[in-house]
Amino acid sequence: MPAPQDPRNLPIRQQMEALIRRKQAEITQGLESIDTVKFHADTWTRGNDGGGGTSMVIQDGTTFEKGGVNVSVVYGQLSPAAVSAMKADHKNLRLPEDPKTGLPVTDGVKFFACGLSMVIHPVNPHAPTTHLNYRYFETWNQDGTPQTWWFGGGADLTPSYLYEEDGQLFHQLHKDALDKHDTALYPRFKKWCDEYFYITHRKETRGIGGIFFDDYDERDPQEILKMVEDCFDAFLPSYLTIVKRRKDMPYTKEEQQWQAIRRGRYVEFNLIYDRGTQFGLRTPGSRVESILMSLPEHASWLYNHHPAPGSREAKLLEVTTKPREWVK
Amino acid sequence: MPAPQDPRNLPIRQQMEALIRRKQAEITQGLESIDTVKFHADTWTRGNDGGGGTSMVIQDGTTFEKGGVNVSVVYGQLSPAAVSAMKADHKNLRLPEDPKTGLPVTDGVKFFACGLSMVIHPVNPHAPTTHLNYRYFETWNQDGTPQTWWFGGGADLTPSYLYEEDGQLFHQLHKDALDKHDTALYPRFKKWCDEYFYITHRKETRGIGGIFFDDYDERDPQEILKMVEDCFDAFLPSYLTIVKRRKDMPYTKEEQQWQAIRRGRYVEFNLIYDRGTQFGLRTPGSRVESILMSLPEHASWLYNHHPAPGSREAKLLEVTTKPREWVK
Repeated sequence: MPAPQDPRNLPIRQQMEALIRRKQAEITQGLESIDTVKFHADTWTRGNDGGGGTSMVIQDGTTFEKGGVNVSVVYGQLSPAAVSAMKADHKNLRLPEDPKTGLPVTDGVKFFACGLSMVIHPVNPHAPTTHLNYRYFETWNQDGTPQTWWFGGGADLTPSYLYEEDGQLFHQLHKDALDKHDTALYPRFKKWCDEYFYITHRKETRGIGGIFFDDYDERDPQEILKMVEDCFDAFLPSYLTIVKRRKDMPYTKEEQQWQAIRRGRYVEFNLIYDRGTQFGLRTPGSRVESILMSLPEHASWLYNHHPAPGSREAKLLEVTTKPREWVK
Repeated sequence: MPAPQDPRNLPIRQQMEALIRRKQAEITQGLESIDTVKFHADTWTRGNDGGGGTSMVIQDGTTFEKGGVNVSVVYGQLSPAAVSAMKADHKNLRLPEDPKTGLPVTDGVKFFACGLSMVIHPVNPHAPTTHLNYRYFETWNQDGTPQTWWFGGGADLTPSYLYEEDGQLFHQLHKDALDKHDTALYPRFKKWCDEYFYITHRKETRGIGGIFFDDYDERDPQEILKMVEDCFDAFLPSYLTIVKRRKDMPYTKEEQQWQAIRRGRYVEFNLIYDRGTQFGLRTPGSRVESILMSLPEHASWLYNHHPAPGSREAKLLEVTTKPREWVK
């Protein structure tokens, strides 16, 4: 009988795919454990292009109003347009150049991308929305030799009402996960998160942050994969704890209205600035419903709305206009 | 006593400014006549830059849930970034080039822009949302000699439920207004409207159209100004008639939900595709609240929502996925 294969000998892309599928099951089961409804799975393929995914969606629960945990695994040939769009954000995307024209040669550039992305909007205005995404990307030549690769991702929290202990727990557990690999990572990824989730025209961050990184290839891929797994493992213990604290708190119609206004800001960020959403909506063959799964069930816009000075609503804006250090 | 000045001798920009201020008063009074609340005026200035505007806002009425009629008159120097951004959409924006670099010389390029823009979202799901915008733009040299000018604008209707007679009336009155000047204009501007208000990722139009034009300088400016006035004058008789027909119709919770879903699509168009919104949000010193006044009070996103075949909701989608000819 052959010995079981050491999973560490599989290509990184296969290990990452296995990891995100395992985490999709773990996370959806974890979230279901505190709700009265179950996730519903939708599997889709990319049509003429390679790959597909599974969207796990929860809607109209007692705890969760709307949420999705989406796994996608896609591969094929990179189009020149996709390369140009991606090069702006990914300095690692180095491609062979045509010596005559100086332009990147995309014929025969194959790519593989896989990732888990999720957004969860709870019912209770005191329970925060969360977003998590970890992804892996690589390109290689026609002959199978690798060209470039990177990891990206992060997790962050978007409350409508600020609870110090929630922000501290979420940041602390993610810091602990990164500290196992390098204590320089958390401060860097925390700052990156505050900068990425910034709604320029509102001069405020989307939420109270977390961690974010992209184009990450600074360590051995096997070690980065372990780091991603550790970050994944920080998520449920923090987010489940937070939602359990908040999901049965009483709330008023006014608090619900404030939640809808904050979700309007969430929509503004995702539709105007989020690079994944922008890129997805402009990519032929991508699945719009999976991309826009991140949008809340209810969002609201009131003209020139400003919370009363000193109110709990105003307290939240203090943190979104001036990011805070959550852990020492 | 001096004879009153012939208004036709004033520069076009001053005539246009007077027209939009007059129309702002007429339209807000017209809309107030069928609601229980009044518009509230907010006047703003551009800070260090020249100009400002008046936002007239209605909120939480019996007839109108949220709406704004905004006049802005701005002028100053065009930045090179603004010129580059505008050149993509405005072929008329020809600027002197530096003979050494071939780049447009923007030093000393002065501009003037004024316009009225409005979006009205009624309470009743059977009453359509409407959008109207007419604007005038010109640039001139430091010495006061003119460089370029154009008019742009239009008006369109976005119902959640389709009423043939409403679509016909709105299109007919706008066609009549344009026919006074040239019968070739309505077919062209109607098509332009269907093409402009297209939500690419949904493969559907935002509403059932109307008229739209931009970069328009094909006639004597005095005649275009009259055409714009005639289009303005087509608006109240069509929209007020339509809203009076619909505002007191009974409706269900389900119809209200469908309205919120359609308003989600409105948000998607405005935040992702609308050039005015994109340009405004990226322009330092612009007033975010006036730009985002167009967003509805309530919007909703349900995962993978599709109306039942043959339903009234599905009937609307037939028109938004395949634009119709409304008048002969």
